[in-house]
Amino acid sequence: MLEKILYPTDFSDASKKALDYIKQLKQAGIKEVVVLHVIDEREIDAIFQHSAVRFEDIVRSIRADAKKDIDAVERELKKDGLTVKVRIERGIPFREILRVEEEEGISAIVIGSHGKSNIKEMLLGSVSEAVVRKSKKPVLVVKR
Amino acid sequence: MLEKILYPTDFSDASKKALDYIKQLKQAGIKEVVVLHVIDEREIDAIFQHSAVRFEDIVRSIRADAKKDIDAVERELKKDGLTVKVRIERGIPFREILRVEEEEGISAIVIGSHGKSNIKEMLLGSVSEAVVRKSKKPVLVVKR
Repeated sequence: MLEKILYPTDFSDASKKALDYIKQLKQAGIKEVVVLHVIDEREIDAIFQHSAVRFEDIVRSIRADAKKDIDAVERELKKDGLTVKVRIERGIPFREILRVEEEEGISAIVIGSHGKSNIKEMLLGSVSEAVVRKSKKPVLVVKR
Repeated sequence: MLEKILYPTDFSDASKKALDYIKQLKQAGIKEVVVLHVIDEREIDAIFQHSAVRFEDIVRSIRADAKKDIDAVERELKKDGLTVKVRIERGIPFREILRVEEEEGISAIVIGSHGKSNIKEMLLGSVSEAVVRKSKKPVLVVKR
C-alpha cells in the first residue's frame, strides 16, 4: 500500500520537511524511495536568454548542483535502511513527476507544498496542487 | 508527527479508501482519529427550496442518516484499537474541516479526493483541493 514512494524534491524547506514524514512512514511499510529532482526547462531557457553561456554549459552546471543535493538526500534515506533510487530529469516539473510515477510503479507520492518560487506558484498554481489533481495514487502534501 | 488524524468523510468511495490508509498508517504512530462529516448547508437550502418539508425536519433527517454512517466508521476504527471521536457539523465543508482542524489540534489530515458530486466539484474545485491549499498541516489525499 505504501511500499514504493516517489519523493519529488526541489531541495526547498517544504521538501526537507516532507523527508521527515517519509522516515516516519517507514514504520507503515515503505521499502523503497524514488527521489526525483526535475530541472525546470523553463528556467534554463530564461537563464540562457540572458547570459552569454552556452545552453549545454548551463544545463551541466545546474545538473552538477542538483547531483550534490540529491546525493545528500540519498545518503540520509539509506542511513534509515531504505532502498533509494535517485533520478534527475529535465522538463516541466509536474509532468515529469507524473511520468516517473507511471514508469516506476509508485504506490504513493510525498511532496512539499511550496517550491522555492512562491510568487510564481501563487499565480500558476503550485506543482504539488497539479500533482494532487492529476496523480492516480495517494499524495501526501507536507507544508513548510 | 501523525498522532491525531482528522478524517473528513462524505461516505463516498474515495472516503472509504482513505480509511484503509488510516489503518495502514496506524503503524506510523496514529493514536487518535477525529472523524468529521460536514452537512453541506447549501444542499439543505436547495432541498428546502424545492420541498414542502420544514427546514428543521430536513436537517434532522439528513443528520440521522449521517449519524448511522459515521457510527459505522467509528466502529471500524475502534476495532483497530484507535481512539475515535466523531463530529457532525453543518456548514461549507472545506471551512468546517479547517475549523475543526484548528479546534482539535490535529497533526495531519487524511481525505478522499472526490466527493459524490463530481461534476459540481470539477467546476468549483474539490473540497480536498481547498483543504490542501489552506491547511497548515500535512494532507494525505487518497484517490478513488
